[in-house]
Formats: sequence, structure tokens, C-alpha cells
Amino acid sequence: MKDQSPTILLAHGSGGQLSHELVERVFVRHFDSSILAELNDAAIIGFESSELQVPGSTNPQPGTDNLKLAFTTDSYVIQPLFFPGGDIGKLAVCGTVNDLAVSGAEPRYLSAGFIIEEGLPLETLERIAVSMAETARVAGVQIVTGDTKVVDHGAADGLFINTAGVGVLRAGMHLSPSNLRPGDLLLINGTVGDHGMAVMMQREGLEFGSSLLSDCAPLNGLIAELLAACPDAVRCMRDPTRGGLVTTLNEWAMSARMGIEVEETAIPVREEVRAACEVLGLDPLYVANEGKVIIAVVPQAAEEALAVLRAHPLGREAALIGQVTDEHPGRVVLRTPLGARRVVEMLVGAQLPRIC
Amino acid sequence: MKDQSPTILLAHGSGGQLSHELVERVFVRHFDSSILAELNDAAIIGFESSELQVPGSTNPQPGTDNLKLAFTTDSYVIQPLFFPGGDIGKLAVCGTVNDLAVSGAEPRYLSAGFIIEEGLPLETLERIAVSMAETARVAGVQIVTGDTKVVDHGAADGLFINTAGVGVLRAGMHLSPSNLRPGDLLLINGTVGDHGMAVMMQREGLEFGSSLLSDCAPLNGLIAELLAACPDAVRCMRDPTRGGLVTTLNEWAMSARMGIEVEETAIPVREEVRAACEVLGLDPLYVANEGKVIIAVVPQAAEEALAVLRAHPLGREAALIGQVTDEHPGRVVLRTPLGARRVVEMLVGAQLPRIC
Repeated sequence: MKDQSPTILLAHGSGGQLSHELVERVFVRHFDSSILAELNDAAIIGFESSELQVPGSTNPQPGTDNLKLAFTTDSYVIQPLFFPGGDIGKLAVCGTVNDLAVSGAEPRYLSAGFIIEEGLPLETLERIAVSMAETARVAGVQIVTGDTKVVDHGAADGLFINTAGVGVLRAGMHLSPSNLRPGDLLLINGTVGDHGMAVMMQREGLEFGSSLLSDCAPLNGLIAELLAACPDAVRCMRDPTRGGLVTTLNEWAMSARMGIEVEETAIPVREEVRAACEVLGLDPLYVANEGKVIIAVVPQAAEEALAVLRAHPLGREAALIGQVTDEHPGRVVLRTPLGARRVVEMLVGAQLPRIC
Repeated sequence: MKDQSPTILLAHGSGGQLSHELVERVFVRHFDSSILAELNDAAIIGFESSELQVPGSTNPQPGTDNLKLAFTTDSYVIQPLFFPGGDIGKLAVCGTVNDLAVSGAEPRYLSAGFIIEEGLPLETLERIAVSMAETARVAGVQIVTGDTKVVDHGAADGLFINTAGVGVLRAGMHLSPSNLRPGDLLLINGTVGDHGMAVMMQREGLEFGSSLLSDCAPLNGLIAELLAACPDAVRCMRDPTRGGLVTTLNEWAMSARMGIEVEETAIPVREEVRAACEVLGLDPLYVANEGKVIIAVVPQAAEEALAVLRAHPLGREAALIGQVTDEHPGRVVLRTPLGARRVVEMLVGAQLPRIC
């Protein structure tokens, strides 16, 4: 299906198929950058040795050293600003930290840009700033630069935050869906759909028990432990945010031109999330996560990787959920409890708008 | 005056005194970063040699090399999206390029985050993307990563853009208002107030002749030529955007605990800008610029620096406008044509909202 709409729709921001088409058609086409065109969670930017400064000298040092950084950005427009398990500020730090971490980088420095609607209580802004500061401390990153804009009442919805982030790519690290090979196994560090359903419940004023919390968390610690314990195991990682698990797996399948098979019963879903999804007619496999990472590993390392994940507080419910195959390239196939197989595609539009 | 408002006002986004108080009170206090606390146009972030990658090896190279990068962000909320001499996209690239350039860095990589109101014509977004791409090409930077969010109709005002940028700090470069010394001379590369008045005229539907254009331009080329020609001349640079010339000079005077004296008749102001300001009751010295840089130079280098600026298309009307003094520390004093001296302070609030 080709996007023929002459105006921007909510679905263009869903992370689904219309988002992809918009990005390709408008941004990738005109910005004409090979780095952008890779459409990874973070851009990898390299700096040559001739740019290095030797303290005390004004001359660059000759040599072949090379610094590779990861650089990424996200804007956060979530409503409501506060939700069970987090707030827009925590989300803005976690989201960018996680995009750097899944690229194989150690997150270091963040920027924070605030677009504030006139009339926002100062106390609200301050609570959010405190939350960002705490999350940054937990993640071990520094917010080093920022910007504040205020727009007139009615010209924005309370508060939007943009964060950009810079991290140091680990030596020798090159994670990409193009690394995927048939037989690679797919892990996830816990239950899916928690973030999206916690926000939806808050938004709709519904309650499904106090345990329905967003999973919003910085994943760089978990990922650092995994990469230290199993340095050669990981082919590719991604955090399945907007569009959920199935959207990310479809991106991988298309990008790698491989098939992906997932075992429905193996995917951890919290009971409250399943119940809430049923009430609202949603599928948890498409619901946003903010503290989950999908990890493709070489088959022989899967057991060890799973053990490392489970030993970490953010990976206790880690599971092996599927594998890469050379059958049905570009497609994600779900095996149901009854043994049936069904293709699960990326959604065209938005399941849940303004979820991040 | 202390800010006691319990809610955010438009004036908090003006770049004036209330903006400064908000940033200090909420962001600097909680984010607790010594780099952020410097409140420069860009943060300087350093990477140690132990983080460098040697191609073909997984071990970091020992040594003392050091890469210093500049990192900055700005959000753009200007209304209208298109104005004489530019548009929000051109502005979003120039603004971040200029923040890096005035820090002494060579701008390299940008991120672009779009917050789009549902219903924006796709053609509008595309025109803006084309403008960003063209401006990036002129400035020699690459847009390497991005994000698109869509909010429901009425939850934003057409389009907001955030850009963050990364540049390489030139070897040995340390520009800061703390470098200012009595006797240093102040240069500007041309007329002030063009951007703000071009936008205001467009917004109000007024016309003051076809030559009232925004000065929106990437300044990194001009600055690179200056630093190459006079490597030891420059103490500090800043682009006087929101709040205009006087706001930037007040920031310098306070930060350096020096006085600044400016000759009113020496400040270049276009006749149409002066006329438009009179009609609207504005002072061009407080009106936003998007292609201007104030440069503090050591006295003996001023003549050469001025010649270099004037030889560049973006510096033809460059002028010597004032000097640093050890009298009246923290204050900016304007000498009027009649020889009177008057203190010009930072505005408390907004002269022109949503000008960038």
C-alpha cells in the first residue's frame, strides 16, 4: 500500500508502515545521507585521528586511531505526562539511552530540548526535571546541553521533550539486522506491552490492578553485562518501542531479507496486560515497550546469554522467543499454541497514538 | 527581580532574564552537570584515548590523545513556518550549525526531530525538508539521524523541529566569556534585527520593501576563515539570536564580570529594520538575528579580523561596535550619538515571542 494522503495523519507517527514510508519519501530522499539511510536506532559517526587533539599541542597527532560514536534523537509527546511507572522526563532519558545502548554504544551525554505550553505549572516542569536527573544518574549519563522554548496557550499540549544522545561505540562492535543468519535465536528481556497498556489505562481512567506499570527503564547496564559476558554472541539488538515487538521483528526481517519465526506461547505477557488488551481490543505484540530489548544471538551462545539476562534485575523474565530462518524472507511468522502458523505484519497505522 | 510565577509564561522562552532564571532554577540545579552549568552555546565533551578504536583491533590504543567535541541542541517553534529569507527548516539547520561554530568547533553531524500536527500538508513538510537539505549542503554538515512524531490536531501548531549537532573542536580552542579582558574589542559581521523584523512583518502582514529579509545563514564558513587567518585573535564568539545583541552582551558582561561599552552609531542597522522597529515600538538591539556573530578579539588583531570578515559575503558590513572595560563590571553601557551613556539591560521577558 502506498501512502497517498496529501496531509500528515496520526498514523504517520505510529512507527508502523506509514511512518516508514514518510521517512523514506521525505527525509531519507532529501537529506541524502548514507548514514541516515541505514535507519538504525542511532547513527554511527566516525572521527579520524587527524582530528584528535594532543593536550599542550595545537597540532593534530598523526596515526590511524578512530573514534566511533553513536548519535541519536527522539522527541517525546506522550499524554498524560505522568503515568504509572514513569513520566515524560524519565521516558525521554530512557528512550535515548536505550537507542544508544542497543547500537552497541556506551551512552554518555544527552541534550534536552523543552517545548512548553504557556500555563504549564512550574511545579510540573520541576518534577519532570527531577525525574530526568534521577534517571540520568541511574543510567550513568550527563545532560550537558539544553534549550527551552515556550509557545502560547493552545499551540502545544503541555510539554514536549526532545533528547539527543552521544555514546561511545564499543571497539569492534557492529550490530545490524544485516548480520542476521538462519538459525540465530531471538531473546527478549521480559514481558511485552507493559508501557503502552499502563499509559492507556491511565489515559482512559481504567484500573487493572496496581501492578500494571510502564516498564520504562534504562537498559544500558543490562546490555553492558551481556556484551561483557558474551562478546561475540550478539548479532543485533533493538528496543521495541512504538509498534511493539512485531513491528521491530518485521523491520529486521525486511532489512535482513530473512524470515523470522516466533513462538506465541514463548513471548512473556503479563496477565494484567493481556486482560487490558482484551478489553480494548489490542494485541500486546504491537503495544509499545520502553524497557525491553530484542536480542539476536548466534545459536551456540543463546543459553549463556539468557542466563546473563536473567541474572539482571531488568531481565528476570527473559525468554527465548524465536529464530531467524531462510524461509519466507521478509516475513514474520507466529506459531500459535495450536501449532498453526500465521504471518504477522507491521501495522499500517497507529494502534495507540502518543504513547511515547 | 526573582521569578515568582507558579506557571510558565511566554516570557520564560524569550531568552531574557526570565529564561535565564528558569534554566538556573530548574535545569542547572537538578541536572547537576558542570558542563551544563557553563551555559555555553554548545557543551564541550571530551573523549579519552582509551576509548579510541584502532581499526582491525578490539583493544583500545594506549596514549594521551583526546578528542573534544561540541554538542548542542535547539528547538524551533517559529511562526509562520515560511518567512522572507528562510523557513523553519533552514533556521533549524543554521541555528545549530551556528551554535557549534561560535564554540570554535567545525560542525559535522546533525539530528532532526519533527513534531508534526496532524493535518499539516505533506507538501509543506517536504518543502521544509528540501530547505534543510540545501542548508546542510551549504554548511557542509550531514543530517544523520532523526525522529518523527505526530500529535492530534490542536495539540501543536503546525510543526516544531528540534536539531542537535555535533562538531569537532579545533585544536587548542577554548572560547569563553571568561577569556574577556579590558581593552578587547567587539566586532559584529553585519546589521542587527533583520531576522526578527522580517518575521514580524510577515506575521503582521505588513510590508517595508522587498529588502527586509531574515539574515538566517550558516556562519561556519565565515568563522573558519576568521580562525584560520587570525588563530590567536578571538577570545569569545556568540550568535545573538533570541534577545538580540544587547542580551548577548549582557550575558558576557555578567559571566566575565567585566563591563562592556558599545557605540550606538557604530552598530549597523538596516534602514527598513529601523523603520519597522519604530512602527512596532521595538528596539533593534533586542531583536533576534540568525546570521550574526559577535566576536571579541584582542585589540591588536581587530583590524585584521575586520578585514577578514569584510572579505566574506556574510561579513561585508562587519563593524567594530565596542569594547570590554574594567569599569561597571556586569553592565553594558551604550554611548548615544549625543555622547550620553546609558545602561542597557537584558529584558525581563519577551519582546517577540516565537521568533525562532
